[in-house]
Amino acid sequence: KEFELSPKDDFDRGKLEDLLKQRFFYDQSFAIYGGVNGLYDFGPMGCAVKSNLLQFWRSFFILEEQMLEVDTAMLTPEAVLKASGHVDRFQDYMVKDLKNGECFRVDHLIEAHLEKMLTDKKVSDDVKAEIRDIMPKIDGMSKEDFRVTLRKYDMKSPMTGNELTDPIEFNLMFATSIGPTGTLKGYLRPETAQGIFVNFKRLLEFNQGKLPFAGAQIGNSFRNEISPRSGLLRVREFTMAEIEHFCDPNNKDHPKFANVANVEVSLYSGCNQMDGKPPEKWTIGDAVKQKLINNETLGYFMGRIFQFMTKGGVDPKKFRFRQHLSNEMAHYACDCWDAECKTSYGWIECVGCADRSCYDLTQHTKSTGVRLVAEKTLPEPKVMDVVECLAQKGLIGKVFKKDAKVVSDYLSNLTPEEVDKLEKTLQEKGEFEITLNGTSFTIKPDMVQIKRYQKKVHVEEYTPSVIEPSFGIGRIMYCIFEHNFQVREGDEQRTYLTLPAIIAPYKCSVLPLSNNKDFEPFVHQLSQGLLKLDISHRVDGSSGSIGRRYARTDQIAIPYGITVDFDTLKAPHTATLRERDSMKQIRAPVEELPELVRDLAQMRRTWQSVLNNYPLFEQQETTKGN
Amino acid sequence: KEFELSPKDDFDRGKLEDLLKQRFFYDQSFAIYGGVNGLYDFGPMGCAVKSNLLQFWRSFFILEEQMLEVDTAMLTPEAVLKASGHVDRFQDYMVKDLKNGECFRVDHLIEAHLEKMLTDKKVSDDVKAEIRDIMPKIDGMSKEDFRVTLRKYDMKSPMTGNELTDPIEFNLMFATSIGPTGTLKGYLRPETAQGIFVNFKRLLEFNQGKLPFAGAQIGNSFRNEISPRSGLLRVREFTMAEIEHFCDPNNKDHPKFANVANVEVSLYSGCNQMDGKPPEKWTIGDAVKQKLINNETLGYFMGRIFQFMTKGGVDPKKFRFRQHLSNEMAHYACDCWDAECKTSYGWIECVGCADRSCYDLTQHTKSTGVRLVAEKTLPEPKVMDVVECLAQKGLIGKVFKKDAKVVSDYLSNLTPEEVDKLEKTLQEKGEFEITLNGTSFTIKPDMVQIKRYQKKVHVEEYTPSVIEPSFGIGRIMYCIFEHNFQVREGDEQRTYLTLPAIIAPYKCSVLPLSNNKDFEPFVHQLSQGLLKLDISHRVDGSSGSIGRRYARTDQIAIPYGITVDFDTLKAPHTATLRERDSMKQIRAPVEELPELVRDLAQMRRTWQSVLNNYPLFEQQETTKGN
Repeated sequence: KEFELSPKDDFDRGKLEDLLKQRFFYDQSFAIYGGVNGLYDFGPMGCAVKSNLLQFWRSFFILEEQMLEVDTAMLTPEAVLKASGHVDRFQDYMVKDLKNGECFRVDHLIEAHLEKMLTDKKVSDDVKAEIRDIMPKIDGMSKEDFRVTLRKYDMKSPMTGNELTDPIEFNLMFATSIGPTGTLKGYLRPETAQGIFVNFKRLLEFNQGKLPFAGAQIGNSFRNEISPRSGLLRVREFTMAEIEHFCDPNNKDHPKFANVANVEVSLYSGCNQMDGKPPEKWTIGDAVKQKLINNETLGYFMGRIFQFMTKGGVDPKKFRFRQHLSNEMAHYACDCWDAECKTSYGWIECVGCADRSCYDLTQHTKSTGVRLVAEKTLPEPKVMDVVECLAQKGLIGKVFKKDAKVVSDYLSNLTPEEVDKLEKTLQEKGEFEITLNGTSFTIKPDMVQIKRYQKKVHVEEYTPSVIEPSFGIGRIMYCIFEHNFQVREGDEQRTYLTLPAIIAPYKCSVLPLSNNKDFEPFVHQLSQGLLKLDISHRVDGSSGSIGRRYARTDQIAIPYGITVDFDTLKAPHTATLRERDSMKQIRAPVEELPELVRDLAQMRRTWQSVLNNYPLFEQQETTKGN
Repeated sequence: KEFELSPKDDFDRGKLEDLLKQRFFYDQSFAIYGGVNGLYDFGPMGCAVKSNLLQFWRSFFILEEQMLEVDTAMLTPEAVLKASGHVDRFQDYMVKDLKNGECFRVDHLIEAHLEKMLTDKKVSDDVKAEIRDIMPKIDGMSKEDFRVTLRKYDMKSPMTGNELTDPIEFNLMFATSIGPTGTLKGYLRPETAQGIFVNFKRLLEFNQGKLPFAGAQIGNSFRNEISPRSGLLRVREFTMAEIEHFCDPNNKDHPKFANVANVEVSLYSGCNQMDGKPPEKWTIGDAVKQKLINNETLGYFMGRIFQFMTKGGVDPKKFRFRQHLSNEMAHYACDCWDAECKTSYGWIECVGCADRSCYDLTQHTKSTGVRLVAEKTLPEPKVMDVVECLAQKGLIGKVFKKDAKVVSDYLSNLTPEEVDKLEKTLQEKGEFEITLNGTSFTIKPDMVQIKRYQKKVHVEEYTPSVIEPSFGIGRIMYCIFEHNFQVREGDEQRTYLTLPAIIAPYKCSVLPLSNNKDFEPFVHQLSQGLLKLDISHRVDGSSGSIGRRYARTDQIAIPYGITVDFDTLKAPHTATLRERDSMKQIRAPVEELPELVRDLAQMRRTWQSVLNNYPLFEQQETTKGN
């Protein structure tokens, strides 16, 4: 589950990082103040990629599936996260350097230490075999397992060599206090999902009481990682996009399942992981039919995730779904698959897709007393036995005075089994003892009236199941960057990014061949034309050869470039259009270019069809110098 | 400045709030847990409005002006907010109930108390005159002023009548701790602006060193309000959109100023406020010419803000710019105008537009030692006198040993004036005493070499000025809702929202006249057609008369509605298109409708031109019942 830290293939990560930093896709936050680990700022290019990716997500999932989007508070009172389990269980284990207090995530520390021992010639083969046996088990270790392993191999701080504490629980939520009195404890949300669950009733109402429906949310979440590293892959503040699809636990079919049944994906099942076998290719349809994927809705979302990721620029050959093993899956989940991308850091989880059953709604119902349930009309009415205990409030009031309400409420809320027991005891002993808040009360037969009858019901209440696809936007962006990083053949210095147009920061560049004044009106006309069509573009009128400027636009992944040259000045006015990946160029009339670029950028037209319809422009980039 | 809490005209706020709550535009966060004051969740409709408004903002400002957008961390280390002044000065005053600890914002409490006294028959006319004199001064009161006023009128807790503490400073930032050691104190950012300032160097570099340019950011900020109220207008977590336009302090002209020079706006100048005169109409051009608005760039943004707000749905008659009085303006600012909208809460600040001079960059330069400056090429080279003090490191090292570096650094960083003094003292006394970190060092003449020479410089460094338009997105949304809330003539129950198409949650509804199966393929065809054009829409196939369904779509501000009826089934297949505000309908071919709606929704075509080109459909809504 945890990704490895050393590059796994010959990918030159340093070169990619140089590009991303230099062209300000993103960089460390507060660098002029020394920086803060695990916080990153997106610059103009990263910000545009992120905003395009989110807009694409919104249109691909929310618009297309008519999901109900919400935008809920990040500040969250403790009670909500107590109910969700985060206050008690959202933690990692750390150890501290006994002398300087430096903290380390214990699983990372153990892993690094053992990896080092494996390469150490002084370590015997027996010990190495033992270590190889331990390593895959690190993720599932308990606090005590960590302690034992730590001590067994006598691990010290990797920075100072000092002694370490025993493992300590560290809750990963950022705590704060809401309001001026300091009495309302709150946290920054660790996921956006809870904001959807606590709005379930309103969303169900908005959907006119009908199920299934999906809530969705895009927003930031926060995790106070012990020792963040690996760039965008493990950060303390990050953007997520989450979907909570609510459905009938007895019917997880999906009406649009046929649309993805033939989608072929690489599945790394729990069984294959246990048996040491590799992932296998499956169609989503077969995987659901064979019960490898638990149900149609889960399968539907997996198919959609695959389509989204690959359209967004993820290489399908570096994409797989890995099933959670039973020991890593939450106890309430019935199936869970992580969409993973292969990078120089190893396989990275980018999207989780889990069937969380009815856990979350049940927890919030328990904590608030508000019934987070849906109703369904029964195929035919059902006759139900009802047992009711009616508290005789007049008499109870007289006898118990100020405690009357507590007693009446208790009696009215008894389960059928408890009513049976009460009735039996009253018949046998003539009284029934109850204890509420430490006080005893004696119930006499005339204080209650027990009613038994049959009722015909037409609807049934149930707690919906939740299927949750959860996207880590920063991780997806990083994987897209890696999968699209290229170097021009024969020129090691010319790096570029082949981002799909839908994700690229700008769709088009407009370049005057030189700073000749006569080019200006055409540059202006093209820029206005693109602006009117809402096509983001960048005019680069800086000096420097056209070849160098193309290289610069390639680095920031601009897929199309229009160049205004001397031929543009002659009627009929034309300009060249260049495609980033092939570097091929055509000539087209100036007034046709904005719409042409729009159709290309919105993927309504292919570059091949443009090549077929316009004359190729053959001049070499390098000889075009100003 | 602080808005009043009682409705100022006959606007029925309750009715609007019912609509916004019922159709889940937004509602209190964590309501099932009892709610948290000052936190709101946006439901599907509010979320769509917000996302449309932000997309419009991005296209209107960032794309059109080629601004550099960033997306920076919300978690902010203390040092950054210490430099910006927030740690020391971002506070309100509160008083606490001495018995139960309840907190009140002192200015609100005083205002409410005095307002109540003004309506009290037992209060003498003299005292009332005194109070009328005090009330306008509340906003500018110091801690001591508050204390005196509080005691003078013997104010008690309005909730319990208990005694109150003296005023206490309360910092409005949410504090937290970053990382596991607990030693790095952080806050949730109180504004997005600082994230732009700390990235100034990277942005300048991205812009190839050229000024002016603008950074921009959309994101959440947090303020721990003492007692939030007034719905979306005063909240603890909110979305801002901020622009920081960096320019030469000696040249604040704007190249596109002519585009807004003729825009007419209502300006409430500082003078008019002091003299008790009303706001006046000005063109932006005249106001800058007359120096009422400080400079062209500030004026340019004010014109653009007006255009953005009114296109977004703000009523121009309920919009004004109010100039900050000198006592409410930050000491470093040279001019500041708030864009205010009139609502039932009074005039509400929605956008601040300030010339912050070079304050922020200077502060961060001081705190970090990183020079946040720009360079400009001088019209002609300048000859400058240079005085340098070269520390003779060999000798200094021998004499001061481990302190040598501190001494050398100190000597190398002397200002020209300090060098003069050092030189003079060395000449006169043969030595010079310095004290560093509590230790004295005696400098001898041979430890330094003083150089004086002239240098020809071609560029000059300067700290840019910042013009900052800062948008409160939630407040703007609320004003748009109020300004667009309508009741159908003759039917008090039929409320609706006339949001502009660009802001409306869905652009179009698709309604089958009844649940007749034959309508389905047409509904599907229309829905797919709209989806392909990325036009958000909602299919409402629920039962209920068409009139009732129109009313429902009007409530959620859907501007256009397509109805599939029995005439649709006949070739050539046509359907009706209805416009929300006029309720007029036309008939058009099914295959033309998606593009027609797109052009209307993107405001490329007017409804009038559609009326002119398609036959009117005359049937009454109410007689159309299923």
